[in-house]
Amino acid sequence: MIERITIIGTGLIGASIGLALRAAGFEGDINGIDADRTEYLAALNRGAIGEGRIVERRPNAFGEPSGIRDSDLIILAVPVLAIKDWMHKLAPVLKPNQLITDVGSTKLEIATLARELYSGPGTARFLPGHPMAGKESGGATLAEAFLFVRAMWLFTPIYDDTTPIEQEWREWVVRFGARTMELDPTRHDELCAWVSHLPQMLSTALAALLEEKFGSAPEIAEIGGRALRETTRLGASPFSMWRDVAMTNTQPIADTLHALEQRLAHVRENLRTPELRDEFIRANHFRDRHKEKNVKPTAPQTPPVNSTPPKLPSK
Amino acid sequence: MIERITIIGTGLIGASIGLALRAAGFEGDINGIDADRTEYLAALNRGAIGEGRIVERRPNAFGEPSGIRDSDLIILAVPVLAIKDWMHKLAPVLKPNQLITDVGSTKLEIATLARELYSGPGTARFLPGHPMAGKESGGATLAEAFLFVRAMWLFTPIYDDTTPIEQEWREWVVRFGARTMELDPTRHDELCAWVSHLPQMLSTALAALLEEKFGSAPEIAEIGGRALRETTRLGASPFSMWRDVAMTNTQPIADTLHALEQRLAHVRENLRTPELRDEFIRANHFRDRHKEKNVKPTAPQTPPVNSTPPKLPSK
Repeated sequence: MIERITIIGTGLIGASIGLALRAAGFEGDINGIDADRTEYLAALNRGAIGEGRIVERRPNAFGEPSGIRDSDLIILAVPVLAIKDWMHKLAPVLKPNQLITDVGSTKLEIATLARELYSGPGTARFLPGHPMAGKESGGATLAEAFLFVRAMWLFTPIYDDTTPIEQEWREWVVRFGARTMELDPTRHDELCAWVSHLPQMLSTALAALLEEKFGSAPEIAEIGGRALRETTRLGASPFSMWRDVAMTNTQPIADTLHALEQRLAHVRENLRTPELRDEFIRANHFRDRHKEKNVKPTAPQTPPVNSTPPKLPSK
Repeated sequence: MIERITIIGTGLIGASIGLALRAAGFEGDINGIDADRTEYLAALNRGAIGEGRIVERRPNAFGEPSGIRDSDLIILAVPVLAIKDWMHKLAPVLKPNQLITDVGSTKLEIATLARELYSGPGTARFLPGHPMAGKESGGATLAEAFLFVRAMWLFTPIYDDTTPIEQEWREWVVRFGARTMELDPTRHDELCAWVSHLPQMLSTALAALLEEKFGSAPEIAEIGGRALRETTRLGASPFSMWRDVAMTNTQPIADTLHALEQRLAHVRENLRTPELRDEFIRANHFRDRHKEKNVKPTAPQTPPVNSTPPKLPSK
């Protein structure tokens, strides 16, 4: 039933969706659109998209959007504010038998706008979606067919009913190897603030702090091991994507940051008290729980080294 | 010249040193001592140590420490406070031709104590050391011969001169694949507070916060991706080791925590201002710099997805 797809935004996620569709056996057309010629050509070169046109930044250079009008499914794989812009532009163009979905990192503003623009008679259907997958660097050259394997692909539906084309898209997502879950969009944004946006802001703040403090000190990068690498990895993430997340999920992110600030102060005030032990135990519990749920378990826990010295007879 | 080694504490680091010695061609005896019978037997089973005796927790059960008295090199691979206890116990037992080194995570207290106990006539030599390697879970079963490959092994020497046996130990460390650097112990503890202790406290605080907030909510572990996994991974670390780090490096760690609290507040107050862009740029610079220095580079950067929608003619 889905025979023609247009992916708008052929960067890391958009191109990975194209590759995942091909790997899962999709044989229809995949049309690609990107404002950045390099990204478009990279996606074409990787085989993530099969046809399409290069959209120049000049707003009137798009011409007739035949690819979009002829598509059964349009996937918006651009940052959140650009998704909202596209939703406005496409609403008057699309027809009821077409489905739009998106991969935006925040869902409340998108779901709210979708209810406004895509709920009347004669509009296309809109299914807000969010694959919890990505890398700290973007771009079609890093795209992978298996990027979504074991990842959670969230949906925040805006209708009470569903349609065959929506069902079919969800089935493709499952064929990509992803798990799926439905969430209320407000709950989605609150949860994602904790599991995704807070880790991002944290990594950015830590990396920026270290840059300011040690930018010219050569030792810092030499000494740092895996702990530093992992906690600052997301510091490489581009502002262009995260600006939109911060703009469209400001209060939930601010709440998580404030809670973490207080928690760090609590740890700081208890570095020499038994409360630090309790904090480690709580953290251990979280990791144990996470490990159980996670399909890629980390190495097994073993008892810690804890040697206390014996009494030695002096010589 | 080094023909017999005793490793005190045969957990992750101690057993990995034993395995690294064997992998690097050391053919002498490796004696192992651990208060935990399971760890001792695991290290023996892995081939990390070749002989030695099980030290029970009862302080008087050690008996004659012949392995230690006959060793050219004694490696203290237990948590920092236990290292200090061992330093006290061993000082009257050891002779000038013997070298003790340690792998403790903080160095100022150890170096200071070493100057007191191991600087007089007739004492053994002491070389404070710290390999920047480890895992969030301890234990000899996770030990690896190649744990130190590309890791930084720091030394904070306490003497103005060096001896052939100290040189030889440093050569073994290089044969393990590690890089080495000398630091003043105060500077060591300050730098390690930033690159190691702060990431640990941060991961613990974040994991503990999530445990408290979402402990019984199944979605959180289902939804979390790599960002959550990496920023909370160190939350699995055992308190037993970190208690000693917090106790012996309290003020530097508190300073880094305080700085990060302020930085997170700064990000929180600027989620919708251009300052957030500057913070991302600083973080990007840190990561670029870190990547250059790091021998295991992450994936290459490419331009971010940044499609703005064109003007579309309405239908």
